[in-house]
Amino acid sequence: MSSVCVRKISDYEPIVGRDEIKTIVSLAERVKGAKIIHVNSTAYGGGVAEILKSLIPLARSVGLDARWQVLQGSKEFFFTTKSIHNALQGDNSIELTSEMRDVYLKVNELNAKTLDLDGDVVMIHDPQPLPLIDYRRDGKWVWRCHIDTSQPNKHVWGFIKPFVEKYDALVFSREAYIPNDIRGIKVFVRFPSIDPLSDKNKPLHQTEILKILERFDVNPDKPIIGQVARFDPWKNPLGVIDTYRKVKEKISEVQLVLIGSFAHDDPEGLEWYKKTVRYAENLKDVYILTNMDGVCDVEVNGFQRAFTVALQLSIREGFGLTVSEALWKGVPVVATRVGGIPLQVIDGVTGFLINTVEEAAEKVVLLVKRGWLARELGRNGVEHVKRNFLVTKDLKDYLRLHIELVGK
Amino acid sequence: MSSVCVRKISDYEPIVGRDEIKTIVSLAERVKGAKIIHVNSTAYGGGVAEILKSLIPLARSVGLDARWQVLQGSKEFFFTTKSIHNALQGDNSIELTSEMRDVYLKVNELNAKTLDLDGDVVMIHDPQPLPLIDYRRDGKWVWRCHIDTSQPNKHVWGFIKPFVEKYDALVFSREAYIPNDIRGIKVFVRFPSIDPLSDKNKPLHQTEILKILERFDVNPDKPIIGQVARFDPWKNPLGVIDTYRKVKEKISEVQLVLIGSFAHDDPEGLEWYKKTVRYAENLKDVYILTNMDGVCDVEVNGFQRAFTVALQLSIREGFGLTVSEALWKGVPVVATRVGGIPLQVIDGVTGFLINTVEEAAEKVVLLVKRGWLARELGRNGVEHVKRNFLVTKDLKDYLRLHIELVGK
Repeated sequence: MSSVCVRKISDYEPIVGRDEIKTIVSLAERVKGAKIIHVNSTAYGGGVAEILKSLIPLARSVGLDARWQVLQGSKEFFFTTKSIHNALQGDNSIELTSEMRDVYLKVNELNAKTLDLDGDVVMIHDPQPLPLIDYRRDGKWVWRCHIDTSQPNKHVWGFIKPFVEKYDALVFSREAYIPNDIRGIKVFVRFPSIDPLSDKNKPLHQTEILKILERFDVNPDKPIIGQVARFDPWKNPLGVIDTYRKVKEKISEVQLVLIGSFAHDDPEGLEWYKKTVRYAENLKDVYILTNMDGVCDVEVNGFQRAFTVALQLSIREGFGLTVSEALWKGVPVVATRVGGIPLQVIDGVTGFLINTVEEAAEKVVLLVKRGWLARELGRNGVEHVKRNFLVTKDLKDYLRLHIELVGK
Repeated sequence: MSSVCVRKISDYEPIVGRDEIKTIVSLAERVKGAKIIHVNSTAYGGGVAEILKSLIPLARSVGLDARWQVLQGSKEFFFTTKSIHNALQGDNSIELTSEMRDVYLKVNELNAKTLDLDGDVVMIHDPQPLPLIDYRRDGKWVWRCHIDTSQPNKHVWGFIKPFVEKYDALVFSREAYIPNDIRGIKVFVRFPSIDPLSDKNKPLHQTEILKILERFDVNPDKPIIGQVARFDPWKNPLGVIDTYRKVKEKISEVQLVLIGSFAHDDPEGLEWYKKTVRYAENLKDVYILTNMDGVCDVEVNGFQRAFTVALQLSIREGFGLTVSEALWKGVPVVATRVGGIPLQVIDGVTGFLINTVEEAAEKVVLLVKRGWLARELGRNGVEHVKRNFLVTKDLKDYLRLHIELVGK
């Protein structure tokens, strides 16, 4: 089990209000002591791990016996699951070899022997631990799919689907993500969430923000635009650099900060990091930073708080929670219309949705010049995230799901 | 009685939360039907009228029989009360002639015959209607002094004090404002408030803000700094222009917007308006606007929302609620340490407190350059105003005062 911090539900009262806390506590009382097991494939890096890191101690603090189990896998396993991930998101060029299928199933079989899967509810996150369903004992099993499976690679989906169909319920992040050939299973739509008290999102004093900027030689007195995302073709870091190039023509003092982290189960990361660095080689005022440079959660937080505008130019997204992370800091977001982004960026209200690099650059220039507009959109963003994308809302949703599945 | 809008207490629930509304409603139930009469000297213009315009319908919506009576006076009367106002704020050059005293008392005597003063509680605002106490019937009488009377002109205070001493209770906006020779009367300290749903503070759509800027030829794409305040020596409009001059040396594209309104009881306004215009004569990008130009509540709201930084360089203040109005819009405020300002501008948290024009210019430059810092301070400002300076808090305080005076 991963180490978890000790935040209590009452810590969130100043943020979401007493009524919301009361609702959560009273839902939790109906399922007190229930054993909930969450299984995913990485204890850090990636959106799912981040959500669990907040959600699980919070669930425990309201009386649930919530646990977190992390699937252990080999390099080959994670290479395979990355392929499955990309294929489910629509990459039709991918084929799974029989060796890949074998390692996928074998790793799950081995993990089934060591993981504690005896819960009232077992929540399996994403495709990596999906086949664990073959080793189910009692309890309700839920597959929580965080990726966009609206147009999956048919070949790979054909392999995955029989596992999916053994679950008692499925949860997707958007209506549109539900594959259209799912029948006879309860399907729920639930938003993922961010934790306003985590290192990545907690309030920072201005001197902390300043120190972070100075540590990485970013000028605090000039506008900063940036994207926080893994180095990955789906996240389109090269498109961000193209956008920056155009913005720089109009606003010569603008700076670009690109932040990514290398996750355990993401072997493509380093390759794309290098590609990105090469692509920006001759450009001034570009900062490409990763956890290897010492940019961890607090630093990401500080940089996001210093952004004049945040970008999220992804080509495909599971949900794109970094958008909510930026919005929560009062930063307007210019982003593509993919995945969960349009649920977070409401065009002209919390940011702008764009289709091309030209449009992105135009909106960024507008927001850098019109500080007041950036502020108004940023303020709307904070409210929007507060209502929809905070971990307290997520916990409430999980409690309701639990009650619906198990009864009580 | 002045026309009042029809806002209900429940309209504020999305802003202050259900708990706060519940508290107010349950306090109000203890004094249901009580007749509360507020008396001031102007139905529009000036902070007191603005508070009453919001407070009274709100008090009615929770079941109180709240009423608003406006003292009618001549030009001579308002000239006199303006002198009294300035004298109580410390202008030792003022002497009241016997003619001035006569008109002051006579106008109050005449008003006592026409105004409805039969309330469970009669709340007299500021010095203009102070002598009405001589015509009191039943009910508890409270003098709500909104100005800084910490170091009053002794001569004028000597004339005023006997009236003050006939009241059942006094309310000041700061501890420090209580004159040190007051004895044997209940004295309360209560903050004044702004209404987040009034035309001056309600949310505006970005296109409305843009239209307002364009209507007055202010460039929406360049930084705007500004002060909203009456044209009056106490508000220091010339100091604002001096500050602007220095900021302009560093940031050539900055613009200055000075907004004031001419209130009914303020004959000095026009003179100081002209003085201000003359003082800025040779400066570029300065906009000096008043209600005469069509800058009314919504326009003030729009301009404030467009400010990169708000200034409040007053030499003396009653409370300086325009500071809270700016903060509520997420705008950091650079201001002097006078009156109620340090209660609103927390140095380095919601803005900066300064002592000189040089310091003011330096902080403005910092905030124009560091958009992220302006945003962080602005965000703190919103929270600070929400906790302390909203009309809902004010109503709650009045209800508690009422319960303390009348019992129940």
